[in-house]
Amino acid sequence: MPHIDLPNLPGIRGLMAFRPETSKPLNELVEVLLRHPNSLTPGERELIATYVSSLNTCHYCQSIHGAIAAAHLDGDEDLVLYVKRDYQSAGITTKLKALLNIAGKVQQDGKKVTSEDVEAARKEGATDLEIHDTVLIAAAFCMYNRYVDGLATVQPQDPTLYRERGKMVAREGYVAVNLPNVMQTEAAELVGR
Amino acid sequence: MPHIDLPNLPGIRGLMAFRPETSKPLNELVEVLLRHPNSLTPGERELIATYVSSLNTCHYCQSIHGAIAAAHLDGDEDLVLYVKRDYQSAGITTKLKALLNIAGKVQQDGKKVTSEDVEAARKEGATDLEIHDTVLIAAAFCMYNRYVDGLATVQPQDPTLYRERGKMVAREGYVAVNLPNVMQTEAAELVGR
Repeated sequence: MPHIDLPNLPGIRGLMAFRPETSKPLNELVEVLLRHPNSLTPGERELIATYVSSLNTCHYCQSIHGAIAAAHLDGDEDLVLYVKRDYQSAGITTKLKALLNIAGKVQQDGKKVTSEDVEAARKEGATDLEIHDTVLIAAAFCMYNRYVDGLATVQPQDPTLYRERGKMVAREGYVAVNLPNVMQTEAAELVGR
Repeated sequence: MPHIDLPNLPGIRGLMAFRPETSKPLNELVEVLLRHPNSLTPGERELIATYVSSLNTCHYCQSIHGAIAAAHLDGDEDLVLYVKRDYQSAGITTKLKALLNIAGKVQQDGKKVTSEDVEAARKEGATDLEIHDTVLIAAAFCMYNRYVDGLATVQPQDPTLYRERGKMVAREGYVAVNLPNVMQTEAAELVGR
């Protein structure tokens, strides 16, 4: 049961419906980081978000961002699992592996990222912007994960729910699916069931 | 030396000048959380941000938010130090102590916040919104701290710099002092020195 009285929506969606003022910048941040035009694909960026969320053992975030990643990657849910369990052996680029190494250090403590980590990413072709965005995606999910877990939000177990929602977010984006009026309608419908 | 080629500004300001697209929601989030009208005073909210930044040992963030907190608290820098070192003995309300306990749990892992922690805050008069905002402030500073440290930004040691900047931010707010054109002018002036 959530620690505070939230609208009846899972994970961060209940929190966003509860506090639209903070929901706006939270959605805009993830929209810029994970969806705006970038030399890293949306699938690659969602994999970084999923990997960090799995390190933070946030069930809701790793499930929904894993589903969004899979939706961007032709439905390849196995690849998402591989990245979470052992990304060094996964079928991803060496550049993404070097960026995931940096993301994993940020999850522990930003100060753990070394010049060698950054140099290794550069050798695989990573640009300053890609390194910047990797660090900020990892840092941002250390926020989203703590926000979702820290208020004990409802986190469904059924993978089907995440799969369907993941396809929709991959198609429409974060800002569009999380508009205050859309969330209020959804919360009201769930209460009505 | 920063891991990437940044404009010549300290801490998060170099990062914000480097990437205005993410700077916008990052500034709006902190403006809503720390400055918008709230039953927690700006000084109390800055103390939560400072405490979490000190737990994450982020020199820049704990220095600047400590200075902003002091500016809101009639210049009481000793109180800020007490809160960082041993908030249970500090001259703050029992409600703020219960909220700092929750913030400290969030800094470790959101799942560490218990119903008892939340109940204890409620007994001291904390509302759902105050509990929500405390969790999100703590979570957000787990992001800002990792962002600032993860890219090895320049973090000056001189307390005078933070004191002066802290007064300005307390007076004018985050969005106003971090507008892209303001930061570009400042970076250019620093280069010119």
